[in-house]
Amino acid sequence: MAFTTKNVSLSKGPDPRGLIQTERAASKFNPEKMNYFIEGNQERSELFKTLIQQMERDPVLFTDCSYYDLTKEQQRELTAAKINRMSRYLENDSLDTFHKRLSIVGLFDPQVNTRIGVNLGLFISCLRGNGTYEQLKYWALDKETAHIKGIYGCFGMTELAHGSNVGGVETTATFDRDTDEFVINTPHIGATKWWIGGAAHSATHCSVYARLVVDGKDYGVKTFVVPLRDSNHDIMPGVSVGDIGAKMGRDGIDNGWIQFSNVRIPRFFMLQKFCKVDREGNVTLPPLEQLSYSALLGGRVSMVCDSFRMISRVSTIALRYAIGRRQFKGDNVDKEDENALETQLLDYPLHQKRLLPYLAAAYVISAGAYRVEQIIDTVLADLDDAVESNNTGAIMKSITAMKSLFIDSSSLKATCTWLAAEAIDQCRQACGGHGYSAYSGFGRAYNDWVVMCTWEGDNNVLSLNVGKPIVKNIIAIQDEGKLVKGPSSYLNEVNNYTTGAGSSEVILDNVNDVNDFDKIVKAIEVAIIRLGANAAKQARQKTLDYTGGELVTLSKLNANHFLLKEYVTRIKDFDQKDLVPFLARLGKLYSASLVLERFAGTFLTFGVASPAFMAALTSTQIPKLCAEVRPDVVALTDSFQLSDMMVNSAIGKHDGDIYENYFETVKTLNKPSNTQAPYTQALKDMLNRPSLEVRERYEKTIETGEILSR
Amino acid sequence: MAFTTKNVSLSKGPDPRGLIQTERAASKFNPEKMNYFIEGNQERSELFKTLIQQMERDPVLFTDCSYYDLTKEQQRELTAAKINRMSRYLENDSLDTFHKRLSIVGLFDPQVNTRIGVNLGLFISCLRGNGTYEQLKYWALDKETAHIKGIYGCFGMTELAHGSNVGGVETTATFDRDTDEFVINTPHIGATKWWIGGAAHSATHCSVYARLVVDGKDYGVKTFVVPLRDSNHDIMPGVSVGDIGAKMGRDGIDNGWIQFSNVRIPRFFMLQKFCKVDREGNVTLPPLEQLSYSALLGGRVSMVCDSFRMISRVSTIALRYAIGRRQFKGDNVDKEDENALETQLLDYPLHQKRLLPYLAAAYVISAGAYRVEQIIDTVLADLDDAVESNNTGAIMKSITAMKSLFIDSSSLKATCTWLAAEAIDQCRQACGGHGYSAYSGFGRAYNDWVVMCTWEGDNNVLSLNVGKPIVKNIIAIQDEGKLVKGPSSYLNEVNNYTTGAGSSEVILDNVNDVNDFDKIVKAIEVAIIRLGANAAKQARQKTLDYTGGELVTLSKLNANHFLLKEYVTRIKDFDQKDLVPFLARLGKLYSASLVLERFAGTFLTFGVASPAFMAALTSTQIPKLCAEVRPDVVALTDSFQLSDMMVNSAIGKHDGDIYENYFETVKTLNKPSNTQAPYTQALKDMLNRPSLEVRERYEKTIETGEILSR
Repeated sequence: MAFTTKNVSLSKGPDPRGLIQTERAASKFNPEKMNYFIEGNQERSELFKTLIQQMERDPVLFTDCSYYDLTKEQQRELTAAKINRMSRYLENDSLDTFHKRLSIVGLFDPQVNTRIGVNLGLFISCLRGNGTYEQLKYWALDKETAHIKGIYGCFGMTELAHGSNVGGVETTATFDRDTDEFVINTPHIGATKWWIGGAAHSATHCSVYARLVVDGKDYGVKTFVVPLRDSNHDIMPGVSVGDIGAKMGRDGIDNGWIQFSNVRIPRFFMLQKFCKVDREGNVTLPPLEQLSYSALLGGRVSMVCDSFRMISRVSTIALRYAIGRRQFKGDNVDKEDENALETQLLDYPLHQKRLLPYLAAAYVISAGAYRVEQIIDTVLADLDDAVESNNTGAIMKSITAMKSLFIDSSSLKATCTWLAAEAIDQCRQACGGHGYSAYSGFGRAYNDWVVMCTWEGDNNVLSLNVGKPIVKNIIAIQDEGKLVKGPSSYLNEVNNYTTGAGSSEVILDNVNDVNDFDKIVKAIEVAIIRLGANAAKQARQKTLDYTGGELVTLSKLNANHFLLKEYVTRIKDFDQKDLVPFLARLGKLYSASLVLERFAGTFLTFGVASPAFMAALTSTQIPKLCAEVRPDVVALTDSFQLSDMMVNSAIGKHDGDIYENYFETVKTLNKPSNTQAPYTQALKDMLNRPSLEVRERYEKTIETGEILSR
Repeated sequence: MAFTTKNVSLSKGPDPRGLIQTERAASKFNPEKMNYFIEGNQERSELFKTLIQQMERDPVLFTDCSYYDLTKEQQRELTAAKINRMSRYLENDSLDTFHKRLSIVGLFDPQVNTRIGVNLGLFISCLRGNGTYEQLKYWALDKETAHIKGIYGCFGMTELAHGSNVGGVETTATFDRDTDEFVINTPHIGATKWWIGGAAHSATHCSVYARLVVDGKDYGVKTFVVPLRDSNHDIMPGVSVGDIGAKMGRDGIDNGWIQFSNVRIPRFFMLQKFCKVDREGNVTLPPLEQLSYSALLGGRVSMVCDSFRMISRVSTIALRYAIGRRQFKGDNVDKEDENALETQLLDYPLHQKRLLPYLAAAYVISAGAYRVEQIIDTVLADLDDAVESNNTGAIMKSITAMKSLFIDSSSLKATCTWLAAEAIDQCRQACGGHGYSAYSGFGRAYNDWVVMCTWEGDNNVLSLNVGKPIVKNIIAIQDEGKLVKGPSSYLNEVNNYTTGAGSSEVILDNVNDVNDFDKIVKAIEVAIIRLGANAAKQARQKTLDYTGGELVTLSKLNANHFLLKEYVTRIKDFDQKDLVPFLARLGKLYSASLVLERFAGTFLTFGVASPAFMAALTSTQIPKLCAEVRPDVVALTDSFQLSDMMVNSAIGKHDGDIYENYFETVKTLNKPSNTQAPYTQALKDMLNRPSLEVRERYEKTIETGEILSR
């Protein structure tokens, strides 16, 4: 009879902790240095850890598995308390630091991130993107919104009957010349503002997207600041708000609906950086309507980073579990040997193939996320400068840069958030039944996550918006000899690769091409060209809408083109050269599995890869890459530098002691002494109920039958 | 100023109700007759509706959107009340009728279905599969378990460290010759029974899978009935149970853990249909170990039916929404016309492509589900007869039939539950933001559903168990000239299609092949053969485990082979001949989209389809089939005959009045009068907090700095 350190055991139980610790001890590189790559550089890596430590020790922000037991009401209350706490850090943080802090909170408590984000990220972005400097300064700084103080903003864009089509919203803002006011109105149920985060209970102000109407003329959708609640938090007259209630996830956010019944605001509450209405009702329109939607850009860019963080988190859980868990005797052990232990899950080639591409994806996307954040910072700063100096040429240049950012951020947001959603679900399944426990973390992660695929630009709509210009460019090149500039200039080769000398060229033909990043990037370009040209043909014969399926595929290929190119660049620039081979291997696995194999139908249909290449890819190359990554999995997940609070999974803790941790969590949160449920009496009554004959008062018995039939 | 019937409108709002009603009025066939196909025949269709009506009117069983607001504790209590109510129907229903009733409940309140299922479907199936007739009769009938009365059983198979590998469970049942008892013990934490539905609070008995140990010898895993709670519902000595707590979904089920600390049961509590221990400790072993797992078969078979029902439900919601919802002006309207209405979502080719294949899948799977249910009924009845008459030949024949059923049910269970999970998520996304509202029904549907992919045989493990015999058969044909019999006999053509005359044969080469079911079935067979032969090659060089990815694909192709063949047969047999064209079209769409396009990589890699065929499939054939199905969508979804209770979605009701229904639900469940949240004071305190300088007691000001630095 053996004693473990914790409880009596009558025989030797499993030792998941030993397995993971042994592999950790054999790490071939320093995970802390690898984190420099993931976070961008050493400085950011160190800031990342400092911030986590602060939050981990913070009595309000600290989060553990008890979080998964909270009801909607408890979540709402806790989220408000956390926002309050975060506002104190905000008063001390630089903008950059707070942005990073928010991004970290987004991983382990996304509803806090979102509920702050509607104020700082959407309301203030809307002020910044659409308001004059004085308007921004007034509400953001003088009224202290930027410090989550004084007033609290929400973002009134979507309506019950209008989401993605912002240009179609039906709330009206009618100029009243007599009083120099706008009258904000919700004309019918379909125009009810809907899904407005913070509206139900928190927000004092709303940036309302409404149709500007002057003298009966509709000037399209503009933005207005409308107070919802007074300083005593009572709703203003004419304003109706309500809670839209339970959601699939993020129940801590008080999403609401708002109806305006002729609510009057001063004319100068209209945001007028680009669009102005003067005292007489003369309207100046903006140079580009899209400018008013720039508020959404920051969110989309953040979601690329959020995607990498989420994938890093869930793959860490599933991989730690896969190392500690044994199941069946696989082909790697002697099945006849009765003493042979069962096989570790992660030693099954199928399990490697199911999980390791997501590990690789976290690395690849981290590089793309960092890059796209740099781009938006530059673009928005340049635009501000240009507007400030009233330099039309610079403004137009910024608008061009912003259009390009719209494309890349749309394609990345859609592709990466879809991939993360898939990763959460696949990682859950890879943990078998235990993945379904709330305490494993996957359920909440999924429920909180998947709204990413439909909000702030529905993924399919965004993908269409990426695919369409590609096809239109191809048509323009073919029909008008247009020359495309910038990152999509490879499209200019469309004639060569569809009707010219290169039309029968197979880019990926040799098994070793899987190791050649340049060739893979080239293959993606040719796939985009040929698929795009095929869509162009259909679009000419039918309509562009008709090619919707192809347009979405084009967007996904476009995102991977961006990601892989950026990943290669980042590896080249990385100063920790001894880590490069590990990074390169992950890049190969990512492209082999999540690009080439995933889009095998496209690559083969259009002759970009040969059938022999694809057969080898699936049957030998991907398994080989997986097997190469396998020994470094503990180090590669440790490199994310996620503390147990960040991972927040009973089965995915750093020490790898899966079963003890899980059982401990279950028993702590559900005291085993409590064996009688509130409904025990009901159960007992059911089980011990009298017979049917008794309860039917013997009215259906043969004897009664005889009496009644006399 | 216009008045609607309900509220004041200042302009004309959207009219989703009108859209759906117009399309419904134009239905080209009678949905009630179409339901005969879906439910199997007219009699079953009518029973289906009778049962729904009973439950819809039942005050306890009736379910609406308030269900989505319940906390875990409320769900537990309500589920118990519903089980109590269901037990009264059970006392009056035939077995078949109750089975159908359970299947229906499973769609709109799956936790009731499961919590009853662990008793009737698992505990009693275990008695039936492993116990003698007397044992079955004693516990199921004399003790009235079969009527959810007297005792309540749970199913003690999985352990904390052992799930899919049932043969590896570590709970022990040691024979004590002195007392003629078994001693049931949990030797260490890993052997703790885990996930046991009903254990936490409901069950009085458990069918325990434990290793039989006699005189120190381990005879492998056998089944034992172990009482957990006495008639006063107090737990027995030596039994420890606990609640495993919150889950991703199905929180109404009291899943628990159980530890046995030398619990004694009489020898005759061992289930001994096949395996016996006599008074002296002599052991008789069963003819096939797998027989003891037959309890799981029924569940797997039911899940095929559950899959079709779930897909029918979620596609109904998303399609009704897609008809009533307008978004942007698509290429089908004049965009310059300011009065042109926006396009109905379902008139976008992309939206059709996203949703209509799932509609088709519900029809195709309904046929397969009906067939596999017929098969299991026959197989189990034959086995019972054979055992009863002690006919060894008949027993062996039944075992062969059961092995075949293990293959087909595994492959169907995995493939269909995966598809349904995907359908729920895709249908949710197709409803944009509103799909994320709890009241749309998708969130709970998904959370409740996805456990289907890992329980009662993890989908990947089951798929491996399907793929392996295919590859082994191919090896045996190639190496030993074996002849495969039964439904997989097409494998005998492996030499022809890989090295012989047929090795370069492209099955699908012509665009019109998409209309030829026989060719498509043939293409699936050749794909299985060539992919299987490729895997066989790898398996010979490396191991079978190495080909895991291919094995899973083989299983999915196998399931589709079964489904499509069965669907064609059912269409041929269907007596409503005027409905056949509609059914045939759905079959084509299913195979074009969810088989051919989905597995394009495989079909192209192994030359089963030509690149030209695939290009045409994606760019013209699938859009064409979708466009053909489009006009019949309302009738095709109405044909499922799901009442509003069954659909239980605020945006998916039969009348199509999306916005009014949704707003009404939100306002009913979240009274708008309640604008002050419990945390309003905390918010006010946060927003109105004194400045940082004040709160820091002016200790960091320049003035203080001067004082302190003097």
